[in-house]
This record gives sequence, structure tokens and C-alpha cells, in this order.
Amino acid sequence: MRQRTFEEIQIGEKTAFSKTITEADIFAFAGITGDFNPLHVDAEFARGTMFKQRVAHGMLTAGLIDNTLTAIGGLGTIHLSQTVRFMAPVFIGDTVTVHSEVAGKDPAKNRFTVKSTITNQSGKMVIEGEALLMLPRPERQ
Amino acid sequence: MRQRTFEEIQIGEKTAFSKTITEADIFAFAGITGDFNPLHVDAEFARGTMFKQRVAHGMLTAGLIDNTLTAIGGLGTIHLSQTVRFMAPVFIGDTVTVHSEVAGKDPAKNRFTVKSTITNQSGKMVIEGEALLMLPRPERQ
Amino acid sequence: MRQRTFEEIQIGEKTAFSKTITEADIFAFAGITGDFNPLHVDAEFARGTMFKQRVAHGMLTAGLIDNTLTAIGGLGTIHLSQTVRFMAPVFIGDTVTVHSEVAGKDPAKNRFTVKSTITNQSGKMVIEGEALLMLPRPERQ
Amino acid sequence: MRQRTFEEIQIGEKTAFSKTITEADIFAFAGITGDFNPLHVDAEFARGTMFKQRVAHGMLTAGLIDNTLTAIGGLGTIHLSQTVRFMAPVFIGDTVTVHSEVAGKDPAKNRFTVKSTITNQSGKMVIEGEALLMLPRPERQ
Repeated sequence: MRQRTFEEIQIGEKTAFSKTITEADIFAFAGITGDFNPLHVDAEFARGTMFKQRVAHGMLTAGLIDNTLTAIGGLGTIHLSQTVRFMAPVFIGDTVTVHSEVAGKDPAKNRFTVKSTITNQSGKMVIEGEALLMLPRPERQ
Repeated sequence: MRQRTFEEIQIGEKTAFSKTITEADIFAFAGITGDFNPLHVDAEFARGTMFKQRVAHGMLTAGLIDNTLTAIGGLGTIHLSQTVRFMAPVFIGDTVTVHSEVAGKDPAKNRFTVKSTITNQSGKMVIEGEALLMLPRPERQ
Repeated sequence: MRQRTFEEIQIGEKTAFSKTITEADIFAFAGITGDFNPLHVDAEFARGTMFKQRVAHGMLTAGLIDNTLTAIGGLGTIHLSQTVRFMAPVFIGDTVTVHSEVAGKDPAKNRFTVKSTITNQSGKMVIEGEALLMLPRPERQ
Repeated sequence: MRQRTFEEIQIGEKTAFSKTITEADIFAFAGITGDFNPLHVDAEFARGTMFKQRVAHGMLTAGLIDNTLTAIGGLGTIHLSQTVRFMAPVFIGDTVTVHSEVAGKDPAKNRFTVKSTITNQSGKMVIEGEALLMLPRPERQ
């Protein structure tokens, strides 16, 4: 990871990140957020739902977008906003891939937007979202 | 936590959740998402930024909203979308409070919206966001 | 665990430690080190490699040697160097056993060497390594 | 992260990774490896040693080298061996930087060596090491 300048970041630039979502991820995320919705952490309850099994927190999977935002923006990228739409469930053992692409730049404000889609191992779209980011202006020496 | 019916959920209904954000939370979230932006995990780098210290991942703090959504919707609430706007940094040791309120209901689709604000211990707004949620229809026996 | 004197530690002295390597171990280690090599954390990618499945980080399994070094050296043992050779992959669910043996002593420097082998549940050697350790001299009262 | 060819990897190529070492890292690593040496996990014991405080496991800090090896070798890099020399203690709150550099290539075997140094926030060398790595040959289609 390195420092990038605002000029270096190009509209259309892409990056991807893949990871298998594990039971350990879900329980760690529940521990951080306090969201113990039984759909996520109770295998017996989940079995009785339309999903038939535990589902990862949407915001956990959405968190993987962060990784690609940092990869695009480089050191110290600042996240200003994020939208996410949860389109299909992510189950334990699913391998998800975040595809992110620079969709716009606002040079006056040193800001850029990144559109992301997350798909599972079958190519099914599970999340789509859009982020607004800022590169910090270099500090005056 | 219990099962709630769509009818029980009232516009204007509120809930809150508070937690101190720890260094361990930030490192665990980096471990889940793979986002090792030095602004979050490198104290020396962070010292040289305008924030002067490490900042929690925005999506980590946003994840605390989940907790209140589950509290409002009850067992098995399904998260359909989320917007978040990051307005101020959250530092290690900050205590944040999520205030969430039911802002709208769509009985035709069993959906409802929840507006959330997150403030720190000084009352400063750090995040605001809006969620769209669904209650699963009861399974036919 | 107790304090040991340098004289107590005997060349040829052995100790062993066994543990099943879990998916949670691999994801926690990725979280500590930031190593999200897809060979370790992406089940789909790993399926396409010669290993056909995810492999534990070599340095994770090597870390189990630490346990035996502390068992041999006792309280406060200091690790000066370590070599490790990764000879075969360790998969999720494999049970590995570290066998460590004191191989040499240097009384002038209060140092000793420990040779270790790690085998899996089939007896296959997965790692071999050698450590140099030091016992702190007792503090003067 | 992407696939790299053996030809792309250049002798002299460098990469770096920085992270603050936290108490949470040390306890997570103890939990993975079972190394509960009180020098690492017992603040009272550590206070009585020459270090005066808890010290990170050497193999934990050494594990950060992994990150740079994956960054250099790209997707699916295989770790064949590692040497590490622990030269100074790493304390909770220290920020360490791994500097890694490709030091040699063996085209006949698709192998390359990487020399790494790890320094703390004062520029003091805490670890130096050398890795042998392999790029998997492309699978025949």
C-alpha cells in the first residue's frame, strides 16, 4: 500500500478482493457490533426461516468493500459515505468477491466515488453499493 | 429478543445502543475485512494525519446500527439496504451511542425504514444513516 | 509453568504439543498479520490450485513451536532466532503435533538450541525448524 | 492483489507494511499457538523481568513478513522456508514496519528469496529474516 495522489486515481480504475465468509467472521462481527440477531448466530432458529441456515450480517459482507476502497485510494483514504443494497443472503462458506470501480471524481473537493458489487461463488449479486471518498490534502511542511 | 409482528412496529418508535470503541474492535474489524488502511492500524502514520491518531473504520461504527435494527424488528429481521454518512471521526476510547427511530412503514411489502444517528460522548454527530428492513412473513405450518 | 535454571535443561530433553488447525485459526492469523493470500482465505481460489483446498499460513503452524519452547525453557524464556522449513501443506481440520528436543547448550551465554518437527495426523512431516533461546539470568535482589 | 508471473518479479523489488502491535494481537496469537509464556501475557510477571513490560511473541511480529511476501509474489505464492532473528523486543503499542526486498531468483525452480527487516517506530531493528518462496506453475488447461 502506498500514498496515491488525486491525479493518479482514474475513472474506470478497478480492483477486486475475494474471501470466504466463515462462521468465525460472523461471531467476531456479532461481538464487535452486539448484533446477535438469531438469523446470524442461532443455527436452530435459522433452520426455521426461509433461509434454512445462518446468514452473514449484511454489514459484515459490506465491510469487505473497505478493503477495495483503501486499495484504490491508497494510504490514508477517508470514507465519507456509503450506500449498500443487500440483494441476496451470504451463507457460511460462501466465497464473495468485491468488484470496485472508480465512477467519478470531484477535483475541487479532492473527492471520488466508487461503485462496488459483491458476488458469491455462483456469480450471484449479493450486494451493490456506492462510496464517496476523500484524499487528504498533503500537510504543509 | 422476541418475535415481533409488523403491526407492533410503530412509526416514531425508538431504541438506542451505546458502546465504547476499543483498539481490539478496530483490529478485529481489520481482520474480518482485510482493511489495513494505516489510518486505522498504524499509530505512527495516523499521528501525521489531520486526525492525529488512529480512527475507527467508518463501517465498523456503522455496524453498531445493526444492533438497534434487530432490537426494533425482533427475531429474524432482514436488512435490505443501508445508507451511512460519516460526519466525524471515531477514536479509540470514544463511546458512541446509536439512536434509531422507525421512520416509515410499507404494509404492502412488510417493510419499514429506520433512521439512525450515532453520536460520541461529547454529543457530536459522527454518523447518520437510513435502513430499509423487512419482516419475514410467518411460515405457513 | 515454572522457572527453570539453565542447569536443569538437558540436551535430549523432549516435549510435544498437538492441536487441530481450524478455519478460525487461519482467519484470526490473517487478521493479525494482514496476510489475505487467497490460498489461505479464499476457498474458491484454493480449489483451483495444486492443493485443491485452503492451506494454513506456514507461519501460523510454525507459531505452535513457541508453545514447546516455553514449556522447555520455563517462565520468561527469550526467543533469539528461528528457522522453519515448510515441507507439506497443513489443511483445515488437520491435527498437527510439534515434537521439540533440546539439541545444544552454550553455558557461557545461557543459550540453548531446540530442534522441532511438526507432523500431521498421518505422520507426514509438515515443518522442521531450529530455535535459539536464552534464559534470562536471575535478577539480583 | 493479482496473479504475477515469475518473470515480473525483479531482484531489488521492495515492499513495506506497517502496523501497530496491540494487546489484542498478543492475546489472539497466544490463543492460536497456546504460547502463554508470562513474558507475553502476564503483566505482573513481565514487570519483574529485564523488559519491565509484556513483549510480543517474536513469531507474531515475524508473521507480518507474510503480508509482504504475498504482496511481492501475488496470488497463491507458496512459502518454502523462513529464517528470523529476533534482535530487540516489540512492546504493546509499538508500530513496526516490515521492509522486504527480492534478493535472488532461481528460474529453474520458479523460486525466489526475500530478505526482510522489521523496525520499530524509533527505527530500531527488531527482526531480520530471509524467506524462500515459490510461484506455482500455471495449471495446464
